[in-house]
Amino acid sequence: MNKARVTLKEVAAQAGVSYQTVSKVLNRQIRVAKETEQRIWQAAEALGYQPNYTARSLRVQRSQTIGYAWEPTPSDQANPILDEFLQSMFHAAERNGYYLLCFPHHANVQQRIDSYRTLIDSGRVDAFVLSAIEFDDARVAYLCQRNFPFVAFGRSNQELCFPYIDVDGGEGLRQATHHLLEQGHQRIAALAWTRDSRVGENRMEGYFAALQQAGIQPLPEWIQRGEGNFRFGKQAMQTLLDLPASIRPTAAVALNDMMALGAMEALLQRGMTPGPDFGLTGFDDTPMARFATPALTSVQQPIWEIGQRLMALLLEVLENNSATLPTGQLLPPTLVVRASSLRQRPS
Amino acid sequence: MNKARVTLKEVAAQAGVSYQTVSKVLNRQIRVAKETEQRIWQAAEALGYQPNYTARSLRVQRSQTIGYAWEPTPSDQANPILDEFLQSMFHAAERNGYYLLCFPHHANVQQRIDSYRTLIDSGRVDAFVLSAIEFDDARVAYLCQRNFPFVAFGRSNQELCFPYIDVDGGEGLRQATHHLLEQGHQRIAALAWTRDSRVGENRMEGYFAALQQAGIQPLPEWIQRGEGNFRFGKQAMQTLLDLPASIRPTAAVALNDMMALGAMEALLQRGMTPGPDFGLTGFDDTPMARFATPALTSVQQPIWEIGQRLMALLLEVLENNSATLPTGQLLPPTLVVRASSLRQRPS
Repeated sequence: MNKARVTLKEVAAQAGVSYQTVSKVLNRQIRVAKETEQRIWQAAEALGYQPNYTARSLRVQRSQTIGYAWEPTPSDQANPILDEFLQSMFHAAERNGYYLLCFPHHANVQQRIDSYRTLIDSGRVDAFVLSAIEFDDARVAYLCQRNFPFVAFGRSNQELCFPYIDVDGGEGLRQATHHLLEQGHQRIAALAWTRDSRVGENRMEGYFAALQQAGIQPLPEWIQRGEGNFRFGKQAMQTLLDLPASIRPTAAVALNDMMALGAMEALLQRGMTPGPDFGLTGFDDTPMARFATPALTSVQQPIWEIGQRLMALLLEVLENNSATLPTGQLLPPTLVVRASSLRQRPS
Repeated sequence: MNKARVTLKEVAAQAGVSYQTVSKVLNRQIRVAKETEQRIWQAAEALGYQPNYTARSLRVQRSQTIGYAWEPTPSDQANPILDEFLQSMFHAAERNGYYLLCFPHHANVQQRIDSYRTLIDSGRVDAFVLSAIEFDDARVAYLCQRNFPFVAFGRSNQELCFPYIDVDGGEGLRQATHHLLEQGHQRIAALAWTRDSRVGENRMEGYFAALQQAGIQPLPEWIQRGEGNFRFGKQAMQTLLDLPASIRPTAAVALNDMMALGAMEALLQRGMTPGPDFGLTGFDDTPMARFATPALTSVQQPIWEIGQRLMALLLEVLENNSATLPTGQLLPPTLVVRASSLRQRPS
């Protein structure tokens, strides 16, 4: 293993000034007395301090800017977490003298990578935040190859090692499934995305784990996979309700609220009341979940907390050697129980 | 009147090179043959070309960065247009070699202005985009006083003159009200924001205009004002339904979808079906409007178009003297008719 890299704290101790001053002088954010400045630069060089990213010498001015692009929501949906997620990162960044530079997400992978390359090569950003990480994510591969700093909201393949914060989606589905089991359901279906969804597969693990713990082997017919939208949720519920009575599920977990709301419409159209007649849960705790009739039980992600932690992690990555950092933090989501999953009306 | 400022086109003609080359050389984005570069700078100086913003000499490098902050959506709501609006601006900006720098919106006005000041003084941005412009908007006042370039999604007081793109919200409400009149309604209520909302007052103008044209004087009881959320919409509809039969409205326009959905719940709780029993329209055409049962008639804003036009306007402002630009463009919204406003089910 490498010796841990020299930190700004060590430089500060050696130069006999505060951490803040060292950080600002080395990043050329302030000018201090010439003699102090010299002492800091000498301490940094004597200790061999250097930022851990390539193509950027100690003396190059940082942009104090972090790049972020995200995949746009389909036009028939609204991204329920985008605003809070961005605001949380903006505030955390501003407190630390950083800004977020936002740029478009290109559907074409080569174009997508080019936009990251341009930002790196022009020196416009010091690091990136990535979200919606998928298996074999091309952005992750490119940034790792460039050894350019980034943190991610989300995980990828287990063998890829990078700093991330993620919601434990499996834990969310485990809670939802467990809750339906507690309501007396035995045949619990799942409205899921296709298998190539990294986020979806993480969530599904919790569904399988909870059923297994209850000694239940889910039937293949119970697992409906498709595009995670309203239309698919409605259609999938119709399919489930058309199964023979002997294997027909009496409850379902959905991997997002849109599918759950579609499923709810299918139930209502058959004269069934979500809750008493069929247990149903969503994921995301969107405003729509709260205002649906009946209100939808859903899994809430700690979005503000995620934005704050991502920025803190990113600052650590920029100040230290990222290889020495813990590579991931999983935050637990919270199940918010409402009428759609309760056999009896809450009193 | 001042003589119109010298444009890049005139500089290009004088130097005998393309507009693109002049723009890029003056902004130090590319290097060309030394002799060409000299010719361009000489032409610019001979003609007296200068960018129209202060505190920035001709020779200062531009950041090619545009600042944007917006007021966060309350946590019980999702911003239905944010993602599309940002994506549209990102793409238009990137095509022109610009990026968006996003920063937090502070609730405290002084802090808010400070964040604009910091960005200007540090040279981080060339211009700003503002949205959700209110009456006597402090940001508008500050940027006008600094003579710093910006464009706005939205208008302010009539006497404030700045480049903006806005949706003609009055036209949207006029269409919605007219549509309800055509459905045979005479007593049409309005679920509105408080009077200090600039956007709300613009929209209400269309409601009053359509009724006036039909010879109808709205009763004060019909106009319910409050926080534009679900809870208020529900409460306001209950109040309307409790009016004496002789003045009780038979239809209502709402200034956003959240209020309309709250109103819908109040109707459903009284066993009334939105559409046949009570005409109802929203505004924003959110996914919730489309997926409500019954589906909600709503006013759709051309969000992608707005983002594209704002960036085009901003580039014009940066290349020319903003004072010579047309100061505003109003885009018409589109009424999307669904079951909630139809007396009879669509066949």
